[in-house]
Amino acid sequence: MSQKALYAGSFDPLTMGHVDMIERAAKLYDELYVAVATNTSKKALFTGEEKMALAKEATAHLDNVKVVALKAGLTVDFARELGASVLIRGLRNTTDFEYETNIALMNKLQDSGVETVFLLSDEKYRFVSSSIIKEIAQFGGDISAVVPENVNRAIINKFK
Amino acid sequence: MSQKALYAGSFDPLTMGHVDMIERAAKLYDELYVAVATNTSKKALFTGEEKMALAKEATAHLDNVKVVALKAGLTVDFARELGASVLIRGLRNTTDFEYETNIALMNKLQDSGVETVFLLSDEKYRFVSSSIIKEIAQFGGDISAVVPENVNRAIINKFK
Amino acid sequence: MSQKALYAGSFDPLTMGHVDMIERAAKLYDELYVAVATNTSKKALFTGEEKMALAKEATAHLDNVKVVALKAGLTVDFARELGASVLIRGLRNTTDFEYETNIALMNKLQDSGVETVFLLSDEKYRFVSSSIIKEIAQFGGDISAVVPENVNRAIINKFK
Amino acid sequence: MSQKALYAGSFDPLTMGHVDMIERAAKLYDELYVAVATNTSKKALFTGEEKMALAKEATAHLDNVKVVALKAGLTVDFARELGASVLIRGLRNTTDFEYETNIALMNKLQDSGVETVFLLSDEKYRFVSSSIIKEIAQFGGDISAVVPENVNRAIINKFK
Amino acid sequence: MSQKALYAGSFDPLTMGHVDMIERAAKLYDELYVAVATNTSKKALFTGEEKMALAKEATAHLDNVKVVALKAGLTVDFARELGASVLIRGLRNTTDFEYETNIALMNKLQDSGVETVFLLSDEKYRFVSSSIIKEIAQFGGDISAVVPENVNRAIINKFK
Amino acid sequence: MSQKALYAGSFDPLTMGHVDMIERAAKLYDELYVAVATNTSKKALFTGEEKMALAKEATAHLDNVKVVALKAGLTVDFARELGASVLIRGLRNTTDFEYETNIALMNKLQDSGVETVFLLSDEKYRFVSSSIIKEIAQFGGDISAVVPENVNRAIINKFK
Repeated sequence: MSQKALYAGSFDPLTMGHVDMIERAAKLYDELYVAVATNTSKKALFTGEEKMALAKEATAHLDNVKVVALKAGLTVDFARELGASVLIRGLRNTTDFEYETNIALMNKLQDSGVETVFLLSDEKYRFVSSSIIKEIAQFGGDISAVVPENVNRAIINKFK
Repeated sequence: MSQKALYAGSFDPLTMGHVDMIERAAKLYDELYVAVATNTSKKALFTGEEKMALAKEATAHLDNVKVVALKAGLTVDFARELGASVLIRGLRNTTDFEYETNIALMNKLQDSGVETVFLLSDEKYRFVSSSIIKEIAQFGGDISAVVPENVNRAIINKFK
Repeated sequence: MSQKALYAGSFDPLTMGHVDMIERAAKLYDELYVAVATNTSKKALFTGEEKMALAKEATAHLDNVKVVALKAGLTVDFARELGASVLIRGLRNTTDFEYETNIALMNKLQDSGVETVFLLSDEKYRFVSSSIIKEIAQFGGDISAVVPENVNRAIINKFK
Repeated sequence: MSQKALYAGSFDPLTMGHVDMIERAAKLYDELYVAVATNTSKKALFTGEEKMALAKEATAHLDNVKVVALKAGLTVDFARELGASVLIRGLRNTTDFEYETNIALMNKLQDSGVETVFLLSDEKYRFVSSSIIKEIAQFGGDISAVVPENVNRAIINKFK
Repeated sequence: MSQKALYAGSFDPLTMGHVDMIERAAKLYDELYVAVATNTSKKALFTGEEKMALAKEATAHLDNVKVVALKAGLTVDFARELGASVLIRGLRNTTDFEYETNIALMNKLQDSGVETVFLLSDEKYRFVSSSIIKEIAQFGGDISAVVPENVNRAIINKFK
Repeated sequence: MSQKALYAGSFDPLTMGHVDMIERAAKLYDELYVAVATNTSKKALFTGEEKMALAKEATAHLDNVKVVALKAGLTVDFARELGASVLIRGLRNTTDFEYETNIALMNKLQDSGVETVFLLSDEKYRFVSSSIIKEIAQFGGDISAVVPENVNRAIINKFK
């Protein structure tokens, strides 16, 4: 059984929580697509291109991981287009759980052939979110333990 | 004991979750007021008038349900004005529960004579929220299973 | 619309949380049955008869409340027998919410004509449970603020 | 990538929630082991052999599902023995989530090469638990909607 | 052991929940800094100066409490500057708990020498939040039971 | 301000989660009492004396920590007797939070002069519980990462 999975997100910025999720999912599937949302908002730290480049670099050691731009539209449609039958989602806490439940059940309603598979966040990264990292970083806090090295450098550059 | 109840909301859009709640509450009270918030925001899908019309149509089969415009002000004051001693609220999950708890206890502080009564969302609709429906609909997803038929038609028209 | 409701429980012992729930539910329904589980376990503080007597005394001021022994069997069947179309349940916190959800949905499966209606525990009693009261009481703690007066006296007698 | 997964449980009794989980997991893996705990307790409804037989029958339509007896010991050791690198767990609500989190992280500590993968319970079965089914069944309640047909027959026989 | 603690917040407005937290924390530490965020947003009810004045007045009866302006930057850095080794946070419910967990663990990553200490909100104020108070107040609701007297007067003035 | 705190528990067995809590609380108070429940149950792994000895050894590096036997009775009474005005409790997740809330509020009712102070479990130990450790250990699992070294040795001896 050859299986492809899709892990989609904003990744603004990519965190070690995301990288851990990608590394573990890459072991479970033949091919893992990491889809980066490229729509820009005023509050975004990085552009879509920057995020794609950082994600590619941070996952370069994983042969079966492919970083792609997330297409506007339903995630299940995009999964189908890529030939992926699995959506990967990480769970950190019960707030995540209830939020993700709603999305997963709605996705199932759209296409019951695409299964949402949940992995548990590593305990080292369970408190890490992109938004909290942005807040810490803008005040010069040290986030090197919770983002990949290239992301850390890019963030330091942003706030220089 | 003749009792009137009030079920207030934004209903942007009205979902099958709401309709199920209305049908069940209508069995429990002599008269059920469905109060539609008509204040407009930029993110709203429907205007107040559209929402009122859709709610009336979708609940036309229920004799003791009356769709009204939610008056600006405290909900408990509006309930008093209508002669309703019960506020109906639906619960889908623990996030709802904690959010609704705060509102119910604050309402009780304003007027302890108005009781908040909670019904459990039907399991078929527990993942349904107006915001998730708007997101799915704008990408052309099929939401016909989770909104009343007239709302589905109106949404398809909006995004045509 | 004349409506009867059923509030069933172990009430070992009856707490002020229960009494508050009974007083509020009594305002909402024409008749409220308080059904006391009378099956005995080794860990029980009071016998079924004692619990019935205490509940009757503590709710004597409520004309439309009737204390009855909970019949072994499905709660929805007992509700039907009493002519009650509503089951009253109190919610203190999210643990209660998830536990009660399972029971309410299973009850609905047995008889969708009996509706479970949830009231929020008063904030003064939200930390009160029969089991914690038993624990405090056996060490001589003062529980007079969270149980009715007659229950307090009966408990003091038990542990004398 | 050929992958085997392990879904272990007490299955006393097997529910439609379990069967749905098995059907969905069977689509995701080349081989799915359903491991039935056979240790007996006084409160058990079925013996280990009965549970094995019922599970085999209820999953007979799934070619790549193999029902086995759960070996006493660490689940990760048993997974290794079977050549399974994935443990399947279902999530119904936040109580499940926190309970399963503890077990998954402890399993990871024992063997980080075995990944716990979570699937979301179908909304139709999210309130179903083996323990609640036993309670309903002993009072003659109808559980045919939430257990497989053969389990329903076996339960009716038990309580005849 | 002489210890200083820091209790930081927006306090827009200061509630009785905050005051209760301050009074209890003041008993536990030699000196308690109450740090008021003074950054202004369009949705703010009070300016930074107004909030400082109200907080000083409402805590004037507590000798070891010092109201200060919260400095932009990392909270742990500000704590260090003040000589405080403890951050005080209140917990009302599980939503608070999960939100505060993330912040506390991120703070620990920044400076493990500053400990976050949680106190439980008094049950009388557990449903009180600054945002719900603003909503009630703008519609003329009575919030006198959940804000200090001087804050109540100031709010009535605002909405006059 | 000289302050004593009390950290009570079953500690069957003492985990690294407990030790981390003790080390952090020891920095916050002049004297920290670690009170070990010595009542014996059939399911207990260690006797009261064994638990006392293990706790003393595992906290020997902490000058201001004193291991004592927990006296039967109300915890607040025991705290008073020791001169402690603070009860220390650890929080791992929302299940803990709701459980501890009930106990803390009941303790407050017994003696509002004793404050319950919560510390957040270290993320490394948030999934660790004494009961899960016992389960893993009896099957020969490796728990050396989550219990102090002396406890690990004692457990290995028990199951030899």
